[in-house]
Amino acid sequence: MRPLAHRVSRIHVSPIRRVARLFDEARERSDIISFAGGAPSVSLPQGLLDEFARLLSTDPLRSCGYTGTRGIPQLREAIAADMEKYGKVHYDSNTEVILSTGGTEAISSILMSILNPGDEVIVTDPTYLGYREMIELAEGRPEMIPVKVEEGYQPSVENLKGLVSNKTKVAIIISPDNPTGRIVSEAFAKALVDLAEDYDFWIISDEVYKHIIYEGEHVWMSRLPGAREHTITVGSFSKEASIPGLRLGYTLAPEEVINGMEKIQQYSTLAPDSLAQFALVKFLDGNLKEPYLREIVIPFYLKKRNVMGRMLQAHLPEAKTITPPGAFYYFVDMRYYLARLGLDEEEFASQLLEEKGVAVIPGRFFGDNGVGHVRLTFVSEPEERIEDGIRKIGEFTSSAKH
Amino acid sequence: MRPLAHRVSRIHVSPIRRVARLFDEARERSDIISFAGGAPSVSLPQGLLDEFARLLSTDPLRSCGYTGTRGIPQLREAIAADMEKYGKVHYDSNTEVILSTGGTEAISSILMSILNPGDEVIVTDPTYLGYREMIELAEGRPEMIPVKVEEGYQPSVENLKGLVSNKTKVAIIISPDNPTGRIVSEAFAKALVDLAEDYDFWIISDEVYKHIIYEGEHVWMSRLPGAREHTITVGSFSKEASIPGLRLGYTLAPEEVINGMEKIQQYSTLAPDSLAQFALVKFLDGNLKEPYLREIVIPFYLKKRNVMGRMLQAHLPEAKTITPPGAFYYFVDMRYYLARLGLDEEEFASQLLEEKGVAVIPGRFFGDNGVGHVRLTFVSEPEERIEDGIRKIGEFTSSAKH
Repeated sequence: MRPLAHRVSRIHVSPIRRVARLFDEARERSDIISFAGGAPSVSLPQGLLDEFARLLSTDPLRSCGYTGTRGIPQLREAIAADMEKYGKVHYDSNTEVILSTGGTEAISSILMSILNPGDEVIVTDPTYLGYREMIELAEGRPEMIPVKVEEGYQPSVENLKGLVSNKTKVAIIISPDNPTGRIVSEAFAKALVDLAEDYDFWIISDEVYKHIIYEGEHVWMSRLPGAREHTITVGSFSKEASIPGLRLGYTLAPEEVINGMEKIQQYSTLAPDSLAQFALVKFLDGNLKEPYLREIVIPFYLKKRNVMGRMLQAHLPEAKTITPPGAFYYFVDMRYYLARLGLDEEEFASQLLEEKGVAVIPGRFFGDNGVGHVRLTFVSEPEERIEDGIRKIGEFTSSAKH
Repeated sequence: MRPLAHRVSRIHVSPIRRVARLFDEARERSDIISFAGGAPSVSLPQGLLDEFARLLSTDPLRSCGYTGTRGIPQLREAIAADMEKYGKVHYDSNTEVILSTGGTEAISSILMSILNPGDEVIVTDPTYLGYREMIELAEGRPEMIPVKVEEGYQPSVENLKGLVSNKTKVAIIISPDNPTGRIVSEAFAKALVDLAEDYDFWIISDEVYKHIIYEGEHVWMSRLPGAREHTITVGSFSKEASIPGLRLGYTLAPEEVINGMEKIQQYSTLAPDSLAQFALVKFLDGNLKEPYLREIVIPFYLKKRNVMGRMLQAHLPEAKTITPPGAFYYFVDMRYYLARLGLDEEEFASQLLEEKGVAVIPGRFFGDNGVGHVRLTFVSEPEERIEDGIRKIGEFTSSAKH
């Protein structure tokens, strides 16, 4: 048969595929300790489960029926009210809010709505591992701001200024960050907004971890002076309500962007999951979210984060990292150990999995500046297994020969 | 702000938007009789609802957790077994099956995987109203085969031959058809396969209505001699299990296409709804599907189809249509009445809604050959309201002045 589309051969499948294989192996074999995934492990909110049951027993046809592409009005209203409550920024639920099939479709359809061939997109390096391919699929060109552990994984305003030009169409900032866990500094965020005003570009503020914060405060990008008309804020229920499989994300943005996204989404997915939409209204409106996050989610993840941090200090004292103030991950500079072992971090990850049964993600999957690093998820395993896993990494790095 | 992407201004939002507004109005006002939608109205399979409840109460974290982009292996196996059982064609569930966020994402990601700029795509006119925009978003060029009521809405082999060339990259056939309800003739399907072999192009066989058949037999495109390696078969649970809101579709195709789709879907939605995936295994494997379709779905829709057909003959004797052997719709040539009224079918639809409270879809939304036609869904309303609605259309067309 004739070859497929060029866009398919241009984008790289390898990183996520390799990650997926690690996930799969780790999921199926309980003897593997997985620091590889990114999925919540905390109990779901009981009130949300009750709402699913109620919807399915009282009106299954409506609960499982088509919704509009933007999503049901009640959920868009609840999302706008939630943004007003926490972020103190007003959005019109009719014209400035759209649901999507996860944060993934949100980012993808924003980029498809905004980018023309050759438009430049500023992202950090390392960054979330889907962005570059999404930019490529929308025919944009990624431009990278390096971030380093020595600077607390904060992008620098100076580097940003060096990249911005009239070709810049959008900058993507995820905060709290995947893979590093850092919360972006308010100084950087403000400088970004100023440049967005001067050069007239968009800011995609990926805030899917906005409520997964252990210290410090979330930076609400759209609230900064001058930011609102340049900012496209992406959220998701995957982390906040622990339902990543139900694929429900959302975007708050100026009307023209929402209109563009609606067009794209009509022809790519038609609409997001109806059942999840109806149920999540209850999560936001029914006073489920705040106690769930405060009493269940944050304490549960914080303890795990602290256990992993203590173990890293004890067993990998020469590794460099930050204590992540948010999100699910330690991003660890392993170059001291890798040099001694004579391995790159990809070889390290694969031998570690084979010899010690511990799964980690090689840092290069997140960008060139991730070389020599690994990403360790702390939310997935029980505390004893976190201890055991880091101890095994320590044994592996101090063993004689590989 | 600077303008959005050109791709967004190139695609048309109007048809679906206008349709959506008709849907919305009709849904919210019980006094409006809606022949506009396309959503099932039959009770959901009880065994499937029970399975949702079981999954949510026994293992909510897994049921609502990420799956791989291709979907869970158990459901891919069940889909391959289902194809083998009904279609008598073998597919490898590991390499030749992928789930997607509805049939919509399936078609969209197939086109994104296959089309390069300028590649030609053969579709019928009228046809399903998302195809042309999806082709446009993937930078292809639609080429239309006209279909007419006088020929039973069958595309002609002669017209097909006139369109096929070395630029043809793919042909899309939906059977049973939306909007006309016709089942494609085996003669046409065979000629299409022969041409696909000669000119080396793909066939997308959109079979989302394959089990919604009242007379005749489904044409399993991939089963025809020589077809398998050229055919990409799309299915969906929206109609078969009456759960369109849960957005679960699937594709069976040669490995290279599935690999391409997986790449696209990783970066556009990541994965389809997990809960629906787990539950649908039970629908296929648990002997729920066949009795549900035979005892509940088909008798329920067939009666409605016959009521609408009888009423059309009685109240719109000069309208031309076919008795649809499958799917959900009558596609009705109203040109006799429209000429007398001095209206085009879009004005007709909007005045009919306003004056008589009956919602129909203007035929031009489905293509130039749909001008002068309307699409009437017969599955959504109870029989008395179908009778009442067609009677009102009759009154409207025979009234003196508009």
